[in-house]
Amino acid sequence: MQDVADLAGVSRTTVSFVLNKVESANIPTDTQDRVLAAAKELNYRRNALASGLRSQKTHTIGFVSDVIASTPFAGRIVQGAQERAWEENYLLLLVNTGNNQAMKKTAVETLLDRQVDGIIYATMYHREVHPPASIREVPTVLLDCFVADHSLPSVVPDEIRGGYEATSYLIQQGHRKIAFICDAVEVPAHVGRLAGYKKALTEAEIPFDANLVAFDETTQQGGRDLAKKLFNRADRPTALFCYNDRMAMGAYDALNALNLSIPDDVAVIGFDDQDLIAADLDPGLTTMALPHYEMGSWAVNHLLELINRRHNGTEQASKPKQQILECPLIKRGSA
Amino acid sequence: MQDVADLAGVSRTTVSFVLNKVESANIPTDTQDRVLAAAKELNYRRNALASGLRSQKTHTIGFVSDVIASTPFAGRIVQGAQERAWEENYLLLLVNTGNNQAMKKTAVETLLDRQVDGIIYATMYHREVHPPASIREVPTVLLDCFVADHSLPSVVPDEIRGGYEATSYLIQQGHRKIAFICDAVEVPAHVGRLAGYKKALTEAEIPFDANLVAFDETTQQGGRDLAKKLFNRADRPTALFCYNDRMAMGAYDALNALNLSIPDDVAVIGFDDQDLIAADLDPGLTTMALPHYEMGSWAVNHLLELINRRHNGTEQASKPKQQILECPLIKRGSA
Repeated sequence: MQDVADLAGVSRTTVSFVLNKVESANIPTDTQDRVLAAAKELNYRRNALASGLRSQKTHTIGFVSDVIASTPFAGRIVQGAQERAWEENYLLLLVNTGNNQAMKKTAVETLLDRQVDGIIYATMYHREVHPPASIREVPTVLLDCFVADHSLPSVVPDEIRGGYEATSYLIQQGHRKIAFICDAVEVPAHVGRLAGYKKALTEAEIPFDANLVAFDETTQQGGRDLAKKLFNRADRPTALFCYNDRMAMGAYDALNALNLSIPDDVAVIGFDDQDLIAADLDPGLTTMALPHYEMGSWAVNHLLELINRRHNGTEQASKPKQQILECPLIKRGSA
Repeated sequence: MQDVADLAGVSRTTVSFVLNKVESANIPTDTQDRVLAAAKELNYRRNALASGLRSQKTHTIGFVSDVIASTPFAGRIVQGAQERAWEENYLLLLVNTGNNQAMKKTAVETLLDRQVDGIIYATMYHREVHPPASIREVPTVLLDCFVADHSLPSVVPDEIRGGYEATSYLIQQGHRKIAFICDAVEVPAHVGRLAGYKKALTEAEIPFDANLVAFDETTQQGGRDLAKKLFNRADRPTALFCYNDRMAMGAYDALNALNLSIPDDVAVIGFDDQDLIAADLDPGLTTMALPHYEMGSWAVNHLLELINRRHNGTEQASKPKQQILECPLIKRGSA
C-alpha cells in the first residue's frame, strides 16, 4: 500500500479510501484515477489491499482509548471487550493515548503496522470523536463514542431511556417532587438524561419545575454543594436523581449534615454504578448502570463480524450500525 | 530463534536462556550443548538473537498487566509508564490478561512476535509473581511486583516506611492511642505496613497493644465494621490508621454514626491516595500515596536503559536492580 501511495504521490490513507471506495472521504476524481493507475501498475489486487496485504488473520484487535486504562472510570469496557475477544481466540492490544491527537494517529498507525485485524476506538465517556483517517484501513468499531456523520459503526448507552427509567422509578414510589442535579457541560449524557427526566415527568403529568434542576461539576463537591442548596428548606423535594454516582456520594454528605436520612426522608438514585462508590456507600446506592461491559463485548462481537466479512469477501455496502444499549436499574438501599 | 529451537528440539525460551547465558534457568549442560550446536549449524550470531533477530529498535514496549486496565485501582501506573515512554518516542502496547496464567503466556508471546523492544510486567497491587519464562527473551522490568529470587529487575513501594511515616505523623500530633485496621490477608503491604506501625510505636516508646489492631476485608464494609468495633467504647483510641482508603471511607461512616467528628474526636489517615475517594471524602482524607505514577515512570526509564545496553552490546552481568520507592504523605483535613 505504501508503494502505491508513493507512486501516486498521496498518503496511504488516501490509497485505502480509494481502493475501499469510501465515498464519505470525498477524494477528488483525478486523485482517485492516479491511485487506481498506480495500483494497476504495481499489480496490486483490491482484495490484498483491503485485507491489509496479508492472506491470514493475525487474531489481534487494536484497542485505542483515550484515558480508560489510566483512570478509574470505565475499566469494565476493557473487561467486556477482552473477555469476548478471548472467547474467539483474539488478543486485544491496548494503546492508551491520553487526549493527545498526534498520539492517537501514532497509535492507530503503529497498530496497523503490527497488522491488527481490526480496531476498536473507545472513550471514557459518551461523546463525539474525530478519529485519525487511517483507522478506516481496517474494520473499526467506535465504543462509547460516535462520528457526527455516522460513517463508522458505533455503540453508546441509551441516555434518554436511562434518565427516563430513573425518574419513572422514583415516580412509581410515590414521589412527585423530584430534584435532578446534572453536569453543567452539555455532553450527550447531560442532554439525554435531562430529556429522559422531563419525559417521565410529562408522562406522569407532573409539571416540570426548573427550580428543582441544578448544574455543577460532576464531582462529590459538586453534588455536595447542589444538594445542600436544594434540600436546606422546608418545602424540600422528597427525591433526588443524580447525574452520576460521584455527585450522589457528595449528596449523601450534604443530606447527612442536614440530618435527612436516606431513603426515608430523601430517596436518592445515581447513574454509572461506579466502582468503589455505588455498592459501597451506606446505604448502598440505587443507580442506573452504564453498560460498559456490554458495550465492550458488543463492540468486539460486531468487529469480528466485520473482520470475517472482509476476509470472506462478503462485505456489504450497508449503513454502519449505530447501536444503543440500555442502562439497567440496579436496586440497592437508597431508593 | 524458532529454527534453532526446532533443530535442537527445545523451546524458543530455552534457546534464549542458553544464548543469553541466563544461569538461573538451570538448563542441563547437554541441552545447552545441543542449542549451541544448532545455533552454530544455522550460523546464527548471538547478537542477532539477543536483539530478537532484528537490527533496528521498534520503539514499542509491551506492557503486560493483570487487571490494571480493567479496575479502578492503579491506572496511574499506566499513566506514569506512558508519559515516560512518550518522552522517548516509545509507544506502550498494553495487554490486560486478567489473572489467567495461560493468557499471560499468550500475551508475552504475542508481544514478542510483534517485536517489542522490551516488556514491563505489572500488577494491580504489590505481590510476588511467576511470569512466563519467555519474558526473558527481551529486557524486562517488573512493576509493583517481584520474583522470589530477584532474577528480574523490579520496582515496588516502600511499605514499611509508609506504615512508619503514617504512624509517626499521628504520634507527632500528640496521639498515643492509635488503632490500625488492616488487610486480613498477609500480602507484602500487610506485612510491611504493620511492621512500620510497630516500628514507629517502638521509637516513641508506646507499647504495642494488640487490641488496637484488627483485620478484615479491605473494603468500605470491612472498614465500617472494624471502626464500629474499635471506637464504640469510652476508652476509645484518638487516631486511626487505615490500611487503605476504601477502609477509611467505611470508617468515616462508622465514626459519623457514632457522632465522632473527624479530625477533632478521631484523626484518620489512609493509604493509597485512591482516586474517587481520598480527595473527595468530607473532610478530605490525609493519606500515604502509593507511588503508582512514579513506579510506572521508573520502570520505563530502567527498561529503556536495559534496551539501549543490549543494543549497544554493553550489557552487564550485574545483579538485577530491586528498586523501592517512597510513599509520600498527602495532608488533607482528616489528620
